[in-house]
Amino acid sequence: MRLRLDLAYDGTGFRGWARQPGLRTVQGTLETAIARVLGGDPQLVVAGRTDAGVHASGQVAHLDLSDAQRARLEKGRNPTPAALAARLTGVLGPYPDVAVHRSAEAPAGFDARFSAVWRRYEYRIADLETSYDPLERGRTTTVKARLDVEAMDAAARSLIGLHDFAAYCKWREGATTIRTLLEFGWRRDEHGILVANVKADAFCHSMVRALVGACAAVGEGRIDVSEAAAIRDVGIRTSETKVLAARGLTLTEVGYPADDLLALRAEQTRARRSPAGDSGED
Amino acid sequence: MRLRLDLAYDGTGFRGWARQPGLRTVQGTLETAIARVLGGDPQLVVAGRTDAGVHASGQVAHLDLSDAQRARLEKGRNPTPAALAARLTGVLGPYPDVAVHRSAEAPAGFDARFSAVWRRYEYRIADLETSYDPLERGRTTTVKARLDVEAMDAAARSLIGLHDFAAYCKWREGATTIRTLLEFGWRRDEHGILVANVKADAFCHSMVRALVGACAAVGEGRIDVSEAAAIRDVGIRTSETKVLAARGLTLTEVGYPADDLLALRAEQTRARRSPAGDSGED
Repeated sequence: MRLRLDLAYDGTGFRGWARQPGLRTVQGTLETAIARVLGGDPQLVVAGRTDAGVHASGQVAHLDLSDAQRARLEKGRNPTPAALAARLTGVLGPYPDVAVHRSAEAPAGFDARFSAVWRRYEYRIADLETSYDPLERGRTTTVKARLDVEAMDAAARSLIGLHDFAAYCKWREGATTIRTLLEFGWRRDEHGILVANVKADAFCHSMVRALVGACAAVGEGRIDVSEAAAIRDVGIRTSETKVLAARGLTLTEVGYPADDLLALRAEQTRARRSPAGDSGED
Repeated sequence: MRLRLDLAYDGTGFRGWARQPGLRTVQGTLETAIARVLGGDPQLVVAGRTDAGVHASGQVAHLDLSDAQRARLEKGRNPTPAALAARLTGVLGPYPDVAVHRSAEAPAGFDARFSAVWRRYEYRIADLETSYDPLERGRTTTVKARLDVEAMDAAARSLIGLHDFAAYCKWREGATTIRTLLEFGWRRDEHGILVANVKADAFCHSMVRALVGACAAVGEGRIDVSEAAAIRDVGIRTSETKVLAARGLTLTEVGYPADDLLALRAEQTRARRSPAGDSGED
């Protein structure tokens, strides 16, 4: 039986998603909690493998249960997949920095990583116009300048589309840098915080933080609006491509096809690994 | 010269507002920072002396400058009271848990504590209907029940008015418990978090946290809506009056009279200490 888990976490206290010996990671913390509830050696597969310090409000993972784990799940007072979330909440303790919002049996063909057709991130920046809020400091990057949000929004929109984003990707052996940026825009929220909405089929490594870094350079007036796309089209990562801090970044949503299309998509991605498939994000 | 400072802080890392030897407090941290910028022995007077763990987004303090401190302020590159906020921001370092949003010369007769005519607090609760957000855990109390927000709101409204709130105050020698509760209501925000708006001329010690505790008891169905006011009218603090955790509480706003009324109010409060005057809140 495969379960789908919907997750949220404050990335501040984690060394990223991926399990690493001796380090506190989101995957390691959750797998330990699941093992306490169901036993065995649980292995989570996640939609977006976030870096150290990156947050998530809408992360998705899947988990395959062994027969023994399934038997333990069905031995509880509430013997349903949905009850696992509540039992994990109990194990994770009060005010945890990672939460399991929902657990459910996954539809046929569902794979948290390979079924995902898009990921959405939010990036938050406080500038000199923002009234700095100490309670928001954990998920907001501070820039000591006054940023031009209209120019940043124009630069962001100029990047949308199917392109080679190599200039905005940390190089990784064998990883494609051709992505479809579906949405990218900036606004100021009611507190004056600059908020980026970034949606793509998938992201290559540190891509969101490089994209928002280019926009911040535009917002400060260090580069022209047109240069954000020009950098992309040159296709080579340069020292000018500043990667902004992880603290401002949150994975907010992952999109999947309707249940009846999942099996078809699984067949297709088996045939040729889709661009969304081999992502080592964020 | 008297300055008015507008402050915000994340109370998590502080043992409350008031300076205490050997403990990290908001007052102690700010006075140390001010001394680094202006020298001398700065003494802050604050509108709401918040308890350990309580947050503030709209705290107000005043500070009297000695001639030597004033001379140092006027020696800077930007020799204005407004520049002190920026210089303190520099001293407090990156991503501080306390921020000075604004510094300005105070109008004649202004006293951050005795001039204040009302204080507004917000209290936030996540219940079983709320999707728990790890990024909000620092300023939200979790209650393991499903709360009836309509009943809580009705209970809150029944408490409004000029009353003796002794049953909702931690006893303190010589402190009046007669307060005017000006606004008190509950709503769910867009994330399902229960948010209380509480406004009064002043609050006695732990009053907000006792008031929201009574409402939470109503919301859980442990007491009837009418009992919140009945407890108040009995006038004696009982073990039934549960005080909720500090983490959910934020001082959001302090109200002052118009500048031309400040001198008049100062005269009046000298003649007889107003109820707002002797508050050891929150």
